[in-house]
Order: sequence, then structure tokens, then C-alpha cells
Amino acid sequence: VVDFSRLRVVLVGTHNPLNIGAAARAMSNFGFSHLRVVHPYEAAFREARSAVGASSLLSTAEEYENLSDAVADCSLIVGTTTLRNRDLQHPFRLLPEGAGRMRDHLSHGNVALLFGSEKVGLSVDDLSRCHWLLRIPTREAHPSMNLGQAVSLCLYELVRDATVEPQPALSRPASGADVERIAGLLFQALQLSGYLGEDSGLSAEQKIRRLVLRLNLSAEDSQTWLGILRQIVWKCEQVKNV
Amino acid sequence: VVDFSRLRVVLVGTHNPLNIGAAARAMSNFGFSHLRVVHPYEAAFREARSAVGASSLLSTAEEYENLSDAVADCSLIVGTTTLRNRDLQHPFRLLPEGAGRMRDHLSHGNVALLFGSEKVGLSVDDLSRCHWLLRIPTREAHPSMNLGQAVSLCLYELVRDATVEPQPALSRPASGADVERIAGLLFQALQLSGYLGEDSGLSAEQKIRRLVLRLNLSAEDSQTWLGILRQIVWKCEQVKNV
Repeated sequence: VVDFSRLRVVLVGTHNPLNIGAAARAMSNFGFSHLRVVHPYEAAFREARSAVGASSLLSTAEEYENLSDAVADCSLIVGTTTLRNRDLQHPFRLLPEGAGRMRDHLSHGNVALLFGSEKVGLSVDDLSRCHWLLRIPTREAHPSMNLGQAVSLCLYELVRDATVEPQPALSRPASGADVERIAGLLFQALQLSGYLGEDSGLSAEQKIRRLVLRLNLSAEDSQTWLGILRQIVWKCEQVKNV
Repeated sequence: VVDFSRLRVVLVGTHNPLNIGAAARAMSNFGFSHLRVVHPYEAAFREARSAVGASSLLSTAEEYENLSDAVADCSLIVGTTTLRNRDLQHPFRLLPEGAGRMRDHLSHGNVALLFGSEKVGLSVDDLSRCHWLLRIPTREAHPSMNLGQAVSLCLYELVRDATVEPQPALSRPASGADVERIAGLLFQALQLSGYLGEDSGLSAEQKIRRLVLRLNLSAEDSQTWLGILRQIVWKCEQVKNV
């Protein structure tokens, strides 16, 4: 059974309180309840909450300092974008197909659906935490959508065919927190072994995170990989200390 | 052939200039061009037109004194509503089915899609001009939608099936030989790091091979993992040789 309460709508860096309110309203229209905001611009979140007619959904929205905390309990992380950025090597899915995949996942795990700021969308760092990207099929000539409308479209598409049977999950997928830990350990091992330079920075970290996400680890296997990587890091540190 | 230029989006009695702008933006996102406004509230239309970033679509929008003039050239008139008002004895169609019917009509005639004012929607008089009513499937408990979002949803559903592209082929999977090499290197790294005992045998090897197979690596990623594992094995061997 698809459990829509497992969806977290995550607004990252939203500037306009009206857009936070519009997202909350769309969620209420289509029966979703978990709204999270990550470092919203200045007082946007406070203003949205105190606006006349602000929903109860908005009052229970959670505020996060960073994206990785906001998606830690989610095993599928989807970023929305209206542009095809082929450099990122991320799989793209158009909304109708992508919503079907999210629905399947909601029958057994939490899904985070990310929306970036009004001006620039999601950052490269935000995108590096996404399993795949969701593209709303707008015209190439005018791809940029209003934020509230984008939220509304995605949620509508999720419930549109609510009667469709979900695909059975083969195994429970790894949580966002586990993927983060695995990517962190792998990054450490690659620095210690000399595969990455000691001064390798954010873009290398993002590349590693995407590499780990593409493994689509199960919760069970992620524990095995954590053990393997801890041991390798421990061993590589010995060399350093010799 | 469906001719989307035959659709007229008709906003009736809209109060908020931001909503007129949002409707115009959604039309541009999905490739529709004919916007008509009927007795918009006070200066809403003028304000919307003069707003920073107002689209060219908005500048060619037409203003009408009454609804009957605004739909005079249309042979199908559809009113949107989020409520089931059974008294009106109008046929209701949910958005997915209704959009299909409008699409069929657009292959031979003009269609007017009507949106009422933010507070009260379409009047009984407005509805009396409609062939049938389109209902966006919102929750009964919270049916009332943001106007810009409602426009956006209807237009998305109209073009939805036209935009579905064939999915690009999934990435080429890793060859059996590469999986074998990766499993071999991983096994070596696990022995060198002490994760596996030096005397670990066939069953441990098989376990590692299954672990690697479950990663479902692409051909491209398998090259990256080979490089990573070679470096880790090299580093772990250094400890042994010290």
C-alpha cells in the first residue's frame, strides 16, 4: 500500500514566504503533511507561518540547518529541475514516470522531494545528494516554473493514479544517513590511500556521493559496506602512522 | 492533430494581479498563448501587465466586458471547479479524463477553459455557459486551490501525454569480467585489511562476489571502482611490507 505520509516535501533556500505558503496549500490539497524547509532566506519561514490563513500544516513544518539532516530519514531523494543539465550524470525522469517510481518507493520507505530556490534552483551540492532528478515537462523555450506550481504539479501527479498497484520492493533501501556515512568513509579511504589528494575538496566529495548513490544499496548491504570501509580506513591509517 | 493554439484560458473576475501573472507564466511553460480576462477586479489586469518581468503573453491578453463575448468563438466551454455542486446538474469530469476530451476537441474546434475568482470561483451564471465542469481531484477536506496552481495543473494535464518521451536507454551494465575483477580486488583488500582472515576460502569469496553483483554497476562506474580498489590494495600492501 502506498503510504503518502512517507513523503517529505523539502524546500531548500526558498526566498519568498508566499511560495512557502503556496507549497503548504498544495500539500494540503493533495493530502501530504510533512513539510521541511532548509535554510530559508531570512525571515521567509517566519513570515509564511505568521501569514493570515496559514495552515496547521505550516505550523508543524520543520526547519533544518542543512540538507543532509533534512533527508536523513529518507531512502529515496529526488531533486526537481526544469533544465537538462547533462554534465551532472544524474538520471532524469519526466514527471509522469518519476512520480510512479516515487509512489512505488512510498509503499516501503520515506521519499524526500526537493525544490530549490526561486532564482537558482538546487545547487550542485544539493543535487549530489539526489538519487535521480525529476523534470517537469515544460517547454524548452520557457522552462522555469513558479515554485508553488511546481510543488502542486508533482503532488498531483503522485496522487493522480493512486489506485495503481505498487511494485513490490525487493529489499529495504539504505537510509540517507547510511549513504552519507558510507560516502564519508569512502572519501576518507580514498584520501588515505592516495587515490584522492589530501587537498581534494567539495567537488570530489560530491562525485563520491553520487558514485555511492548509484549503487542503490539495500539497508542490509549498507551495514556490510560500512564495516568493510571502517576496516579499510583503519588499515590505511596504520600506514600513515608507521 | 491536436492544435493547442485553439485553447483560450479565460480568467473570470480575478482579484489578484499576481494570479493573472502566474496564470500567464504557466501558459508559457506549457505552450499556450491565448489568455482572456473577463471583468477583472479593479486594476488587477493593468497591474499584472505592468509588473516587472510580465510576459509578452500578458501583453497580448484580451480583456472582455462579459463572459459570453469572451467565449463566442469557442465550441466547447469548460468550467473549472474543485467542489462537487450536485445541484447544478452539470456533468463533472475529473482532470485526467476531462483533459483528454478537451484535447480531442482541440483537433477541430476552439475550447474555452474558465477559471473563476479566488474567493468564490465561477458564478451560477458563468457555469450556465459551460458544456461540462472540470474537477481537479483535491481532497474533500481541503478542496480550494490556488488559482495559478489550478491553471498550471490543467495545462500540464493537457500536454502531459504529448510530452512523454521515450526513455533513454539505461547505462550499459558492467561485464562479467569486470565484476569478477572487482570482486577479486575487494577480496584481496578485505584480506589485507584484516576484515577477512588470511585463511578465508571459497564461501567468503562467493559472498563477496554476490555483494558486488548486487551493486548492479554500470560499465562506466565499474572502471572507477577498479581504480579505487587497485589503489586501496596497493596501500594496504604497503603496511604488510613495512
